[in-house]
Amino acid sequence: MSMPLSLENHILTYGKEVRRNELENLFEIHFEGYRLFPMNQTIEIKRDRDAMQIGQGKVVELMWKNGKTICKYKLHSLFNVN
Amino acid sequence: MSMPLSLENHILTYGKEVRRNELENLFEIHFEGYRLFPMNQTIEIKRDRDAMQIGQGKVVELMWKNGKTICKYKLHSLFNVN
Amino acid sequence: MSMPLSLENHILTYGKEVRRNELENLFEIHFEGYRLFPMNQTIEIKRDRDAMQIGQGKVVELMWKNGKTICKYKLHSLFNVN
Amino acid sequence: MSMPLSLENHILTYGKEVRRNELENLFEIHFEGYRLFPMNQTIEIKRDRDAMQIGQGKVVELMWKNGKTICKYKLHSLFNVN
Repeated sequence: MSMPLSLENHILTYGKEVRRNELENLFEIHFEGYRLFPMNQTIEIKRDRDAMQIGQGKVVELMWKNGKTICKYKLHSLFNVN
Repeated sequence: MSMPLSLENHILTYGKEVRRNELENLFEIHFEGYRLFPMNQTIEIKRDRDAMQIGQGKVVELMWKNGKTICKYKLHSLFNVN
Repeated sequence: MSMPLSLENHILTYGKEVRRNELENLFEIHFEGYRLFPMNQTIEIKRDRDAMQIGQGKVVELMWKNGKTICKYKLHSLFNVN
Repeated sequence: MSMPLSLENHILTYGKEVRRNELENLFEIHFEGYRLFPMNQTIEIKRDRDAMQIGQGKVVELMWKNGKTICKYKLHSLFNVN
């Protein structure tokens, strides 16, 4: 009847991402709940909320199943944060 | 960063609706949080989750502000539930 | 920057569904574009817009990729439409 | 049955914004179609797609009605683009 989801405009990884493809810089990350990311658009990717930006990428695949979100994204650029 | 909302496919009124226009059967109801209803589509309108269907209507205006949703809908048909 | 999608509250199959699992009545159907279905909620499933309702089911998996939507749903009940 | 909308993560004004409140830097802008902006989150505001960023702001009110979106946002910072 009522389905909670959340609208996201960047990815917080908390270090839980898993690399899927070395050449393409393709990563997969799982989230609890249904999360809606803009597809194929450049968004910020950060380790946590207070982190400096660590990179930019694009979500290329989004799956919702069993109350979870599986998100695959390509990392396009990395920033060196000293 | 992350914005919770909920996807709705009917209206549960809990008797909180207010009639806005007698001739058009236009009602207004407020909800906590951001709720996304399909616009201008026939949906069920019920008093509560366990109620028999009490009517059908269409959401004609949806406003999000200050963490609240203001929804205006037209009631098209009423069912007599004894 | 701007990502088109559509909010759906039932499934129109046009006969394009493929059965994935006989025992569970699990079907898969592909759509052009990104389509947002309510997850795990009873929705109508119809062959086309003008069809009588042919059944009810629940979307159990939704995937967005390459501008397409892959939707898996379980058919719960079938109506005999003569 | 199917309701098109678009997911937005910034505002392109094309100069069509109208100032609503001088002190608060509150602006109103209308769009065709139903557009979903993240609420109360810092997003970029630009004059057009190719413009340098002209500012940052937050959407504080969003209304959908008659196939149109009325968006009110507060402009927080302006960048001087020479």
